Amino acid sequence: MSKPGEAGLKALADYLAQDMRACNQVIVARMQSPVALIPQLAAHLVAAGGKRLRPLLTLAAARLCGYDNQDGKLRHVEIAACVEFIHTATLLHDDVVDESQLRRGLASANAIFGNKASVLVGDFLFARAFQILTADASLDVMAILSAASATLAEGEVMQMTTQNDLSTSVDQYLQVIYGKTAALFAAACEAGAVIGEGTPEQREALRVYGANLGMAFQLVDDALDYAADQAVLGKEVGDDFREGKVTLPVLAAYEAGNEEDRVFWRRVIEDSEQTPEDLDAALALIAQTDAIGATLRKAEEYAAKAREALALFPECDIHSLLIETASYSASRER
Amino acid sequence: MSKPGEAGLKALADYLAQDMRACNQVIVARMQSPVALIPQLAAHLVAAGGKRLRPLLTLAAARLCGYDNQDGKLRHVEIAACVEFIHTATLLHDDVVDESQLRRGLASANAIFGNKASVLVGDFLFARAFQILTADASLDVMAILSAASATLAEGEVMQMTTQNDLSTSVDQYLQVIYGKTAALFAAACEAGAVIGEGTPEQREALRVYGANLGMAFQLVDDALDYAADQAVLGKEVGDDFREGKVTLPVLAAYEAGNEEDRVFWRRVIEDSEQTPEDLDAALALIAQTDAIGATLRKAEEYAAKAREALALFPECDIHSLLIETASYSASRER
Repeated sequence: MSKPGEAGLKALADYLAQDMRACNQVIVARMQSPVALIPQLAAHLVAAGGKRLRPLLTLAAARLCGYDNQDGKLRHVEIAACVEFIHTATLLHDDVVDESQLRRGLASANAIFGNKASVLVGDFLFARAFQILTADASLDVMAILSAASATLAEGEVMQMTTQNDLSTSVDQYLQVIYGKTAALFAAACEAGAVIGEGTPEQREALRVYGANLGMAFQLVDDALDYAADQAVLGKEVGDDFREGKVTLPVLAAYEAGNEEDRVFWRRVIEDSEQTPEDLDAALALIAQTDAIGATLRKAEEYAAKAREALALFPECDIHSLLIETASYSASRER
Repeated sequence: MSKPGEAGLKALADYLAQDMRACNQVIVARMQSPVALIPQLAAHLVAAGGKRLRPLLTLAAARLCGYDNQDGKLRHVEIAACVEFIHTATLLHDDVVDESQLRRGLASANAIFGNKASVLVGDFLFARAFQILTADASLDVMAILSAASATLAEGEVMQMTTQNDLSTSVDQYLQVIYGKTAALFAAACEAGAVIGEGTPEQREALRVYGANLGMAFQLVDDALDYAADQAVLGKEVGDDFREGKVTLPVLAAYEAGNEEDRVFWRRVIEDSEQTPEDLDAALALIAQTDAIGATLRKAEEYAAKAREALALFPECDIHSLLIETASYSASRER
């Protein structure tokens, strides 16, 4: 399912098509288990596609640092598959936690296989990721990915505690999206740099690139939840609204709104009292207050920082494509 | 909450009291997070106590192999804490999966904090365990514990797919309990042997000890679910029955029953049609067919294998206490 304006990301995936194919093969091979339900459920998510943005970042970072796999191994591919397993595990658990019915435009795994299977297969994929990391034997990569996994869980818990709470500050919101999204983007890039034997400066630059790219990515995701067609987005529009998630579009509209607006927001977000017409009312207030514009401008700030972080690398195809990916990540047409 | 006949285990915990205290300190220190809900929820489980059997096995195995922490570290304590984190993570996820209301005689974490928090804090503890493993830097220990974690998830999924299915064979049941319980017991012991720099034979002996101890332990647990008072057991009697879990007491009673009995079992287990009187009827059938006796005899077989596995170690206090622990693990008075 291609989306308008995916060019930056798609061009990178095309450029690294051979690595991406190898990564898909590792993903399919390593999600096998004698317990048939595990590969069945995992295959449902793999089949649903997704952009595989995070493993792509690992592959690109390794190649940007000059990884040429002359070791006869495909370490960058193995680690990229790990990153995707960790991400998939959190998706499975998120969908249980959020009771989501759709994921990437298809029925979510929990909707088909039930919550139990989704929790347990998530656990399996997480454990399998650490088996692959152990086999790869880089303590640096393990430290990066285990720390990111802990931060991810912290971000999700923090998001839960800010839910329905309009006194959440923008800083707290930014901490939440760092944890739930940007930390793994940062780790995916940094792990690639370690595999590519980048210098400490290159490794740090790629970490910063990934962190800022992840922030931009999540900000746009949060904007699209109030601004996109379901067909384009592949998820239910207004999901965040219905769940009472306190995202930047809501915070910005609440901040810029008058007292009547705020009474509305408190009812629908804090008290979770929503009528079927309330989503349209929320969309109208968000449009009036330019809350989407504010969110996208914030995303562009992060995208700019991501691009700057790569300044120390010499010009090359992957460098340009990563710069382009940062630009597209902050675009509402991504 | 002490149970009658816990002596074997308790004597081992008393003998290793200093190590156990250090392990508790590491557990409390390493479950901290700036996200307050994480230590709050984790503390609920820690406060609920539990026997800490798995970390105790890691400590005992390391000491049995001669670990004297002259390295100035307490590696066995760190790894024991990891083992407890992995176990706690699976408890949190199990209680969500099983919708349990009680755990160790107290309200379960999901009943107090909700399913979302339980799933996410489980993920956090699992990630944290791998951070500790990475810091310890033994690839062998990592391989043991990441493989056990994957096997654990496989065992839970397999248990889910055998639920409500009376055509489950005894072998399949044994595979399930190996995965969900014995694999982590085996890993806890083997990891301790690695830390204690045991010989390959000692390492293998401790792995076999742990695996068999875990089998005995789970068999007795499954027997107690049809045979114990709630006050003694600290969980709701008949939980397995209500969930339609196919455990050995049920399989044995079904196998030994007449056609009328089987009609009963199919209704209550396969069709999940239960009236409030059915648990008593099930307990009566189980008593008639000596299904508890059959389950406990099987547990004793595994306990005997656990004891045999330790034959290659010289006599010493810990050796005797581990032998005793195996005997008590197979006792219904444990």
